[in-house]
Amino acid sequence: MTTPPLIEGHCQACNADSPLASDAEKKQWLAQIPDWEIIEIDGVEQLQRQYAFKNFVEAMAFAQKITDLAESHNHHPAILIEWGKCQLRWWTHKIHGLHENDFILAANSDVAFA
Amino acid sequence: MTTPPLIEGHCQACNADSPLASDAEKKQWLAQIPDWEIIEIDGVEQLQRQYAFKNFVEAMAFAQKITDLAESHNHHPAILIEWGKCQLRWWTHKIHGLHENDFILAANSDVAFA
Repeated sequence: MTTPPLIEGHCQACNADSPLASDAEKKQWLAQIPDWEIIEIDGVEQLQRQYAFKNFVEAMAFAQKITDLAESHNHHPAILIEWGKCQLRWWTHKIHGLHENDFILAANSDVAFA
Repeated sequence: MTTPPLIEGHCQACNADSPLASDAEKKQWLAQIPDWEIIEIDGVEQLQRQYAFKNFVEAMAFAQKITDLAESHNHHPAILIEWGKCQLRWWTHKIHGLHENDFILAANSDVAFA
């Protein structure tokens, strides 16, 4: 069985009944986005990656690209900007954890960086 | 004795020998920016405030205004953007804590928000 590329996925509208990613799905999807890690904040799993930049303005320009991406999918991350770095965290508030959407957006964030 | 308004201050170039804000100065300057608090992260004092917005894009637009402010003073904060909120933290890396510059930029951030 081949796994469809995350980058070809489309963000689905979520509600509180939407399924959390299973352990098997998380493993399979993480393999496609090897620079991301799953962290836990207040019991909620989130996808996290930090990107490096030459200065503050370039980090902010990337944050603006991510904002455009987030708006187009109607799904929004946490963005932490400091001098020379931008950290993203994707998770799904409505289900208090990780949905396929978050992996799709993480993959798309990498494309925006590339 | 009257305290000069922070908002009229100018950010000075800092080096490792620049003075940390004294307890008396912190008290006096915080009185001018009552929505800010001093927090400590890894032993480093920082000024922190969270601002509320209607959505992600407005929070990001504020982050862009803060970026312009930071560039004009050559002093940069940490900016955390989530849906409907933007949190700022100002501190001075070179002295591992708070300098007058941080209070001046906090006051200017409030002006940018107003």
